[in-house]
Amino acid sequence: METSRRQFLKQTGQFALGVAAGAGVTGLIGCAPAAPAAAQAPKFPWTYAKLDSVTVAEKGYAGYYKGACMYGTFSAIVGALADKVGAPFSTFPIDMMKYGKGGVYDLGTLCGALNGASAAISLVADTTIAEKLIDELFAWYSSEALPDYKPQTPKYDIVASVSNSPLCHVSVTTWCNKSGFKAFSAQRAERCAWLAASVAKYTVDLLNNQADNTFKRVHTTPADVTTCLSCHGQKGSVENVHVVDATSCTLCHVDLSKHPVPIK
Amino acid sequence: METSRRQFLKQTGQFALGVAAGAGVTGLIGCAPAAPAAAQAPKFPWTYAKLDSVTVAEKGYAGYYKGACMYGTFSAIVGALADKVGAPFSTFPIDMMKYGKGGVYDLGTLCGALNGASAAISLVADTTIAEKLIDELFAWYSSEALPDYKPQTPKYDIVASVSNSPLCHVSVTTWCNKSGFKAFSAQRAERCAWLAASVAKYTVDLLNNQADNTFKRVHTTPADVTTCLSCHGQKGSVENVHVVDATSCTLCHVDLSKHPVPIK
Repeated sequence: METSRRQFLKQTGQFALGVAAGAGVTGLIGCAPAAPAAAQAPKFPWTYAKLDSVTVAEKGYAGYYKGACMYGTFSAIVGALADKVGAPFSTFPIDMMKYGKGGVYDLGTLCGALNGASAAISLVADTTIAEKLIDELFAWYSSEALPDYKPQTPKYDIVASVSNSPLCHVSVTTWCNKSGFKAFSAQRAERCAWLAASVAKYTVDLLNNQADNTFKRVHTTPADVTTCLSCHGQKGSVENVHVVDATSCTLCHVDLSKHPVPIK
Repeated sequence: METSRRQFLKQTGQFALGVAAGAGVTGLIGCAPAAPAAAQAPKFPWTYAKLDSVTVAEKGYAGYYKGACMYGTFSAIVGALADKVGAPFSTFPIDMMKYGKGGVYDLGTLCGALNGASAAISLVADTTIAEKLIDELFAWYSSEALPDYKPQTPKYDIVASVSNSPLCHVSVTTWCNKSGFKAFSAQRAERCAWLAASVAKYTVDLLNNQADNTFKRVHTTPADVTTCLSCHGQKGSVENVHVVDATSCTLCHVDLSKHPVPIK
């Protein structure tokens, strides 16, 4: 039974903690010296277990209506891992991820679905692996017509749009202009719920491929970014842009008529 | 001794976990029925304890050189709480926050110092409080000359600049253009380390003020944002922008010559 309990604690990532707490109790009955209970962080990164991407997509859709976009993707992935693996995923304070809503509390910056997915990836992958998966995720998000996952019980039908940007403001306004729906409408919220589902699903596909050693980048850097960074990026003649990859330059820099040299 | 241990576990936020693990061990020696060890998440949000903002700023500076900007601010605040309070802060997988580097792995989106500070605020505050603190933080970041905290042992002297934006790309390029240093230079890295320190310090000031019930918003919404959102924001005649607050519209939307109606 002791072996069984040790195996359980080891499997749930709480081995060190379980032993420490157990030692404290054993001390109370005089079998061993008392030791203080100590809550230790599990080994990082936490161990990923392959997930069903459709199940996670549905969780992302439901999670959006509970805590918006960042919470939607993060809670879908980490919640599914908690369902499958238990601790340490079940101990994560998932509610903290509500801050990413609408590009951080409706300030329109980074899409919360991407922020939550990036956080989830970074919980289960080292920085080298996380960076390559996140680069692909952002490139996919900005260049594909999204949302591309229709939930099993949707509230509305939703048209897809290509954001050309990972920013909430650009992504939402592009969709509003295409669909004709207002930015604070129920249809726009539904679109972002589908989007959280779509991003959660694609993130799980990436993580599963990584687990199988079959990941490869599919969506590449756009030509305008490569051109601009050849001068403005690292080791370029100007080097005033701290970016190594991006989804578009000319989406914001629309007027290059005053550019000091002709654009190649 | 039992009382003492219960109090310790309660103070460290691991009361439920300690009891569950203890029950499992007691079962092994026949004193009570066996129960599986269960790792439960502490009550959310986690309880903030007032911090010394200069100490946290120094942690932010050091943290930047360990894991970049998002890690810098998050590890400074949550690390200081772990130093002061212990668990549950000491159990947080802080390394996951390295993903925010350079606006998420050098993609230039949301400033990682802001992303990390927002995550830290959201770990210790409910959504209503977190939103008002984060609104102030973003408005401060975008309108003040930063960095405004000089570490005790800096590598270089650093000039300050006003970003007018919470985005990494805009913030860094504005500083590069003002300082003359390149985007991948050691001086630019030092600037972002000072910035992580500055953001961590101001965030702690906000959290401390909130703890004292003396918080009030100081940095307000710029006039261009108010004007634009009067039509493009919620309940405006166009309503195609899903933003309730922002730091600038005209920084990106520089050419309004084709705007269909005269700008007020």
